[in-house]
Amino acid sequence: MSAQVIDGRACAHALKATLPADVSRLQQDGLPIGLATILIGDQYGASAYERRIRRLAAELGVPHRPHPLPADTPQDGVIRLIEKLNNDSSVSGILVLRPLPAHIDEATVFRAIDPRKDIEAVHPENAGLLALGVPRFIPSTAASVFHLLDTWLDSVGENRADFYHRSLIVVVGRSNNVGKPAISLGYERQATVQSVDEWADRTTGIGRHTRWADVLIVAAGKAGLIKTEHVSENAVVIDVGINPQTDADGRVRMVGDVDYASVAPRVRAITPVPGGVGPVTDVWLLRNTVRAARLLAGLPVDDVLSLATPIPALMEES
Amino acid sequence: MSAQVIDGRACAHALKATLPADVSRLQQDGLPIGLATILIGDQYGASAYERRIRRLAAELGVPHRPHPLPADTPQDGVIRLIEKLNNDSSVSGILVLRPLPAHIDEATVFRAIDPRKDIEAVHPENAGLLALGVPRFIPSTAASVFHLLDTWLDSVGENRADFYHRSLIVVVGRSNNVGKPAISLGYERQATVQSVDEWADRTTGIGRHTRWADVLIVAAGKAGLIKTEHVSENAVVIDVGINPQTDADGRVRMVGDVDYASVAPRVRAITPVPGGVGPVTDVWLLRNTVRAARLLAGLPVDDVLSLATPIPALMEES
Repeated sequence: MSAQVIDGRACAHALKATLPADVSRLQQDGLPIGLATILIGDQYGASAYERRIRRLAAELGVPHRPHPLPADTPQDGVIRLIEKLNNDSSVSGILVLRPLPAHIDEATVFRAIDPRKDIEAVHPENAGLLALGVPRFIPSTAASVFHLLDTWLDSVGENRADFYHRSLIVVVGRSNNVGKPAISLGYERQATVQSVDEWADRTTGIGRHTRWADVLIVAAGKAGLIKTEHVSENAVVIDVGINPQTDADGRVRMVGDVDYASVAPRVRAITPVPGGVGPVTDVWLLRNTVRAARLLAGLPVDDVLSLATPIPALMEES
Repeated sequence: MSAQVIDGRACAHALKATLPADVSRLQQDGLPIGLATILIGDQYGASAYERRIRRLAAELGVPHRPHPLPADTPQDGVIRLIEKLNNDSSVSGILVLRPLPAHIDEATVFRAIDPRKDIEAVHPENAGLLALGVPRFIPSTAASVFHLLDTWLDSVGENRADFYHRSLIVVVGRSNNVGKPAISLGYERQATVQSVDEWADRTTGIGRHTRWADVLIVAAGKAGLIKTEHVSENAVVIDVGINPQTDADGRVRMVGDVDYASVAPRVRAITPVPGGVGPVTDVWLLRNTVRAARLLAGLPVDDVLSLATPIPALMEES
């Protein structure tokens, strides 16, 4: 039996359809919405992401102001630009594209962003609000992982609360921008959550942990890390990895952290790469931009933890 | 074979001995150090903790200003007091004792504390810095759990890095003040870390998870939750629980979340209650007060993640 393929493009499409109405409403009421992106240098992944965001913003009618900076821009120059954007009322969301050049300290730059415009939640205050279970914004990749999971559960008719309460979610990789926020979202769903990092791979082996996962979220940045012997037959596998790989014929293509060909036939459900988490992430960033605009205007926003629809049984304080 | 008992009182005593020299040095240099505590009402646990801190501050020569407030103090009144303490240069650390009366919103009060004086790291900025792996302060209970573990590893001659890298740390309970910070400290030690909350107890049972733990940290607030069938023979058990229990003869005594009588004979090492985590926690709060005073004065501080002594192999970025 082969796994169900979780279709990220379809999920992104449905999510995108909810946004134009919100954007128009803000604009009709004369409330500012605008996305500013800062791209320093021309790193391939960052440039490609900026182009996707640019297209999506145009499609959704969200004013987008790209700020390309030369790779040798001094850190002070980046911070001065951020301060200008903080004070610009036409800008509701600020995104600094990663990775930054080596001479710039990421933490210092992220701290300069007004937390209310920090749509990727990279400022410590926003990381703290998420860790404490009262997030202002959820970083788009982690949000997308759980939006895909929630949507898939709905599609197969499983009650979300029942599923999460009995499940072990194993997250491989604990980066500040993906792994840790995903773990926080697992907490909010009251699942048992396990965080595995690369040391386990060097010592006892990650299979010791990943084989028990009901949900396996892989964000390690290592092509083909997860193979058939690392998963159980009941697992739902969400692959966050995007790794360039050169084929025998010299073509470069993107592959995930999961060895799809060997894992897909064994598990219950799986996201492909490309076409899994990525497309949802792009839409989520624009969704966070709308959210920021509404928050700045003092308008009510959805409970962001519940993502697409509320999960009543999870609202109780445990 | 019976477990080694990890002696929290001895550990606290050794840690306390490091502090008077730091306090005198600050005072000789004319640099302010002072601890302000805010106790609202007379809840038993909060009052008892305040008295212990008061005695310890006196013993260490740290000026302590207790601020007892009536149980019906309005929230605004608490916040005005905090603002006064924020602006008082003789105060380096501010502790608001938990639990707060029901009419006061904990999060609002915690946000009012100047993050640089927030020695329990309850402000979102400090929670965020810890979540991001660059803490300003570590909440004293979680810090004490790992200080006990590190000290015990040293005492049995186990290399800390080797131990943590191959270990699964299971944390039962995911409160913002104990469970989540303990998980962050497990990440910094590059262990595999698993968070189990009460839902697992209601669905698949917590033993499914806790039986695999090399280190079991229990902070669930449920007397006797962990029994012999929940642990493995190799486990090191750290019991954070403090639950009042009335004996058959009517005497009230404090017991942990671990059923000590049945678990201790089975495991490798265990902390007792009382005399385990508690005494270290009190000292750690004063240690954080010294740290706050040094940070406010612009003096260098230890890498707080390394706790008592550095762990060189863990300094590499993973």
